[in-house]
Amino acid sequence: MGRRDLNPEDIVRYEEDGPKVVLLDQRRLPDEEVELECTTVAALVTAIRELAIRGAPAIGVAAAYGLALAAARGDDVDAAATALAASRPTAVNLEWALAEVRDDPTPKRARRLHEAEVERCRAMAAHAAELFEPGTRALTHCNAGGLATGGYGSAVGALRAAWERDLLAHVWVDETRPLLQGSRLTAWELEAAGVPHAVIVDSAAASLMAGGEVDCVVTGADRIAANGDTANKIGTYSLAVLAAHHGIPLYVVAPSSTVDLATASGADIPIEERAGAELTTRFPARNPAFDVTPAGLIGAIVTEHGVQRAPYSASLAALV
Amino acid sequence: MGRRDLNPEDIVRYEEDGPKVVLLDQRRLPDEEVELECTTVAALVTAIRELAIRGAPAIGVAAAYGLALAAARGDDVDAAATALAASRPTAVNLEWALAEVRDDPTPKRARRLHEAEVERCRAMAAHAAELFEPGTRALTHCNAGGLATGGYGSAVGALRAAWERDLLAHVWVDETRPLLQGSRLTAWELEAAGVPHAVIVDSAAASLMAGGEVDCVVTGADRIAANGDTANKIGTYSLAVLAAHHGIPLYVVAPSSTVDLATASGADIPIEERAGAELTTRFPARNPAFDVTPAGLIGAIVTEHGVQRAPYSASLAALV
Repeated sequence: MGRRDLNPEDIVRYEEDGPKVVLLDQRRLPDEEVELECTTVAALVTAIRELAIRGAPAIGVAAAYGLALAAARGDDVDAAATALAASRPTAVNLEWALAEVRDDPTPKRARRLHEAEVERCRAMAAHAAELFEPGTRALTHCNAGGLATGGYGSAVGALRAAWERDLLAHVWVDETRPLLQGSRLTAWELEAAGVPHAVIVDSAAASLMAGGEVDCVVTGADRIAANGDTANKIGTYSLAVLAAHHGIPLYVVAPSSTVDLATASGADIPIEERAGAELTTRFPARNPAFDVTPAGLIGAIVTEHGVQRAPYSASLAALV
Repeated sequence: MGRRDLNPEDIVRYEEDGPKVVLLDQRRLPDEEVELECTTVAALVTAIRELAIRGAPAIGVAAAYGLALAAARGDDVDAAATALAASRPTAVNLEWALAEVRDDPTPKRARRLHEAEVERCRAMAAHAAELFEPGTRALTHCNAGGLATGGYGSAVGALRAAWERDLLAHVWVDETRPLLQGSRLTAWELEAAGVPHAVIVDSAAASLMAGGEVDCVVTGADRIAANGDTANKIGTYSLAVLAAHHGIPLYVVAPSSTVDLATASGADIPIEERAGAELTTRFPARNPAFDVTPAGLIGAIVTEHGVQRAPYSASLAALV
């Protein structure tokens, strides 16, 4: 891969011969392109928990394949669904995908869900591109690319669509500590797509904004509450406050599978706390993996159904 | 060292036997405590440029010792001063310290400057402690500790003084990418001083503020312009905007040697751009080492002369 575009099956797929779920191990990118084969649901749960595959839509797709794997192996499908749903707490896509395939946990149904997620990405990218004007310098955080969605990408998909339409001049890529999904994964995807970009430390975003070098911020989402409050990678809320201070719009680009009308507001979204060891310090550490951006700081939420504006309570309820 | 307090001469000193300037190599902390011996001005310039010693007051002290070294070796003292002043562009302390010792470039004079900087730290820490209330949870960025000042510290000195007065409950330590001065150096100093602390990724500060877990932000400075605009480690401006949004004060603690009345405002402060390789990514990168916080976002500037409030143009002119 590397310089060529990723196909959805390069990121995650089901193989009847095994059977097994095969995924590109994202922990080892961009240095090595290595596949991980999960022949049990337990192995897949570990792979999701340890971020061999990550990104809300992509782990939903992986969980759907996992349920097909459980059924093919003759495992208890309910127990498998429970284990997969519990692998990570913040993204709602896990629960959503498991509910979608629960009545038909077959490879065919899971593949259809995977294809539909990629189609949603292409549709939302086209909608999001309408938000760009020629020469836009966008800033993105974490990786909301093809790796995160099972193909094409949400926020990165929007950037690709804007680039193809000659609307994008440059992308600032937050490196995204602690696990560097920006400098490892997003930069790798933008390079493959030929999009001009530069990696920055997360804390440099503010001074680039003050210097007039950022026209918009574009991120994905792990869960969008009914009122539009959005959980995403730690640091997204920080960018939202900074963008508002500088009069720069922040756009959330995510498939409708990320919208959770059962969660009223951001206060009800569980935030995953990960091990302090991820900060590679020998001193005490605190490591929340996500934060919540209040709806009031979000300029637009873009799904496959189009560009939604505040008040989100009405617009989100209408589209799901 | 490690668990015990650092003495000023552990951080940087002049030895007549050589002669040489000896410094604790801060690039290798906290894993290894290794001294670096500079027997030439060129070696010391390299040590400053490559951050074996860093922190505005500390590199000023090192430059003063460097000028004494040049004189002892019979080098051209003016050429040595020019080379030392050019080693890093943003901190004004280099120029200030070189001007201080230019007429008497002796070890005795340089040591007196070093002692005076540490005394200033103790004085400003006592003033800064007045800003704390019992139970304060402070957040700091980069390392404005003893390592950065040649002893005791500016912002970290203030935290130590507050801790000794039972005014401090906890310190959030921004890891401070790309070079991790927070998680490597500040946490190491706070551990030695027995101050409760936890390292966070820089982008987590905002959500801790939103959660009501931060009472104030305390940082050092590399250069304070005549109007109070302050250059400090990249990410400080980001914290200032975030703190203002959450109604949290940001305090700058720095010796008067950091105040530069010859620089009218932040727009006139040169910002060092360092190699993108510091971000350890194989993709394009941009790496400004500092940013500028406008005076309007600074709740107080604390020097050895006391706590200054806005308008800073008047208060800074009066104290220098």
